[in-house]
Order: sequence, then C-alpha cells, then structure tokens
Amino acid sequence: MPEKTLETLFHDTLKDIYYAERQILKALPKMARGAKSPDLKAAFEKHRDQTEVHVERLQQVFEILGKPARGKTCEAIEGLLAEGEEILDEFKGQTALDAGLASAAQAVEHYEMARYGTLARWAGELGLKDAQKLLVTTLQEETKTDEALTVLAEGSLNPAAMAA
Amino acid sequence: MPEKTLETLFHDTLKDIYYAERQILKALPKMARGAKSPDLKAAFEKHRDQTEVHVERLQQVFEILGKPARGKTCEAIEGLLAEGEEILDEFKGQTALDAGLASAAQAVEHYEMARYGTLARWAGELGLKDAQKLLVTTLQEETKTDEALTVLAEGSLNPAAMAA
Repeated sequence: MPEKTLETLFHDTLKDIYYAERQILKALPKMARGAKSPDLKAAFEKHRDQTEVHVERLQQVFEILGKPARGKTCEAIEGLLAEGEEILDEFKGQTALDAGLASAAQAVEHYEMARYGTLARWAGELGLKDAQKLLVTTLQEETKTDEALTVLAEGSLNPAAMAA
Repeated sequence: MPEKTLETLFHDTLKDIYYAERQILKALPKMARGAKSPDLKAAFEKHRDQTEVHVERLQQVFEILGKPARGKTCEAIEGLLAEGEEILDEFKGQTALDAGLASAAQAVEHYEMARYGTLARWAGELGLKDAQKLLVTTLQEETKTDEALTVLAEGSLNPAAMAA
C-alpha cells in the first residue's frame, strides 16, 4: 500500500466535494420551486447556474491532477440536504418557510466554504497553483452567496416569518 | 395546527444544534486520541471543554424560551462526524492523518458557525436579546476555533503531511 500523503487527501476530498456539488445541483431547483419569496427563488436559481460552473472547475482540477473526475459519496452533504428537504416538508405553506430554506442553504454554503478553503490551502502546499486559483474563485462565490442570503434573510425573509 | 412562524423555526433549530453539540462532545475525545500532533490533540481537548460550555449556553437559551432542553436528531452533524470517523479509519498511521482530521473538524466548525449565525439573527428578530448574546458568544468561539485550526494546518499539519 502506498503511503497516504497530502496528495491522497487532496484527491479524496476533491471526490467528496465533486459528489456534493452534483447533489447540490439537483437540490437547488427543488429549493427554488419551494421558495415563496421571488427574491429567494431568484437567489437559488442564480446559485444553481453558479454551481454548474463549480462542477466544471472541479473537472479542471481533476484534469490538472491527471485523474478522472469521479465523485465519492459524501455523507455530510446528504445530511445537510436532508435538512433542506425537512424544511420544505415541515414548513410547507407556513410563514417561516423561506427563513428556514435560506438557513438550510447557508448551512450548505458553509460546508462548501470549509471544503474549498481546505482544498485551496492544500493545492498551494502541493504547488498546484492553477488548481488553487480555480478553488479560490469558487470559494469566493460560495462566500458571496452566503452573504447574499444573510442580507435577504435580515432584509425580508426573517421579518416576513414574524407576521403570523 | 398553530401557524409555524419564526419562533417555531428558532425552537426547531435550537433542538437541532443542541443535539449536534452533544454529538460533537462525544466525538472530540476520539479525535484527540486519534491525532498524532500534540498541538492538534490539545486543540481538540480545548474545544471539547468549550463545547461543554456551548451545551450549557444552549440550555440557558431553552430556559429563556421556557422550553425543556431537548435535542432532535440532526442528520447534518451525523454526516459531518461520519467524515471525521472515516479519516480516523482510512488515514490511521498515515502521513496525512492530522491534516485530514483538522479539515474534518473545520467542516464541523463551519456547520456550527452557520447555525449559530442564523440563530443569533433570529433571536434578535424575536427580541430575545439575552439569548442573542449567548448565541453570539458561542459563534465567536466557533469562529476562533476554525481560525486556530487553519493556522495549525498551515503552520505544521499540512507541511508534515507532505513528507512521505
């Protein structure tokens, strides 16, 4: 068995986030359909389009590594997306639905921020400068998405959830 | 059925993070035992002690709400902690073990940061100023833990994971 070094870990984690991004790609249209607020719908739709690009960037990182783009079941994203489904289900038609959907989406964003932050640092350590650039670009987009959801939640979704 | 408003959502999410914190409390000693680096061991042990206080703060928030402190199975944390277990298992005795453990812990920190950020905003919206203060204090500690793990990873764990 070859020694498992940072390169092994980088490749494993890349497969993990690749799987996660493709699950997110499937989940976002459901979240957009479920959302009541047109602004939240639009935010989910915009992020769906961004996520397609994130998947492509990951494919480029696999290419840089000289490995096939392949996912690996990621239990964390399964659990995080299950929480979104639960909100869709339990808060359907309820005042706090959108506030709940935005918070579930922010938990997903934070997972991605953790993953891309780690991967970008590892790419730097491994001397994979082009891969690092791709990962940092996605990290910045995930961070902006999270911030935009906070603004939306504070500005309209949370106040709307108060009015019974 | 009463209307589900922001208060319902706040209470549901509080139960979710209460469950999560108690699972984290059980997981951290395993992570500390598994870690090779004395600094990483110490970081996990310190965070275990902080987590005990986070649990107590949540109990105070339940008290403010006038509700019993009760958890609710949180699939997200199950998945996130399963990833840590996987690293412990698959990288046991391997060069990149500590880098992997730190990254798994940072994914957990990010989940908590998302949750506490949301809960603190909701507490503010609901006029629960004391609860908000407690939640913000924990949020700041989770953020610092995440930052400390980044410093440790960059300074020693990632470079150590390179040397095969």
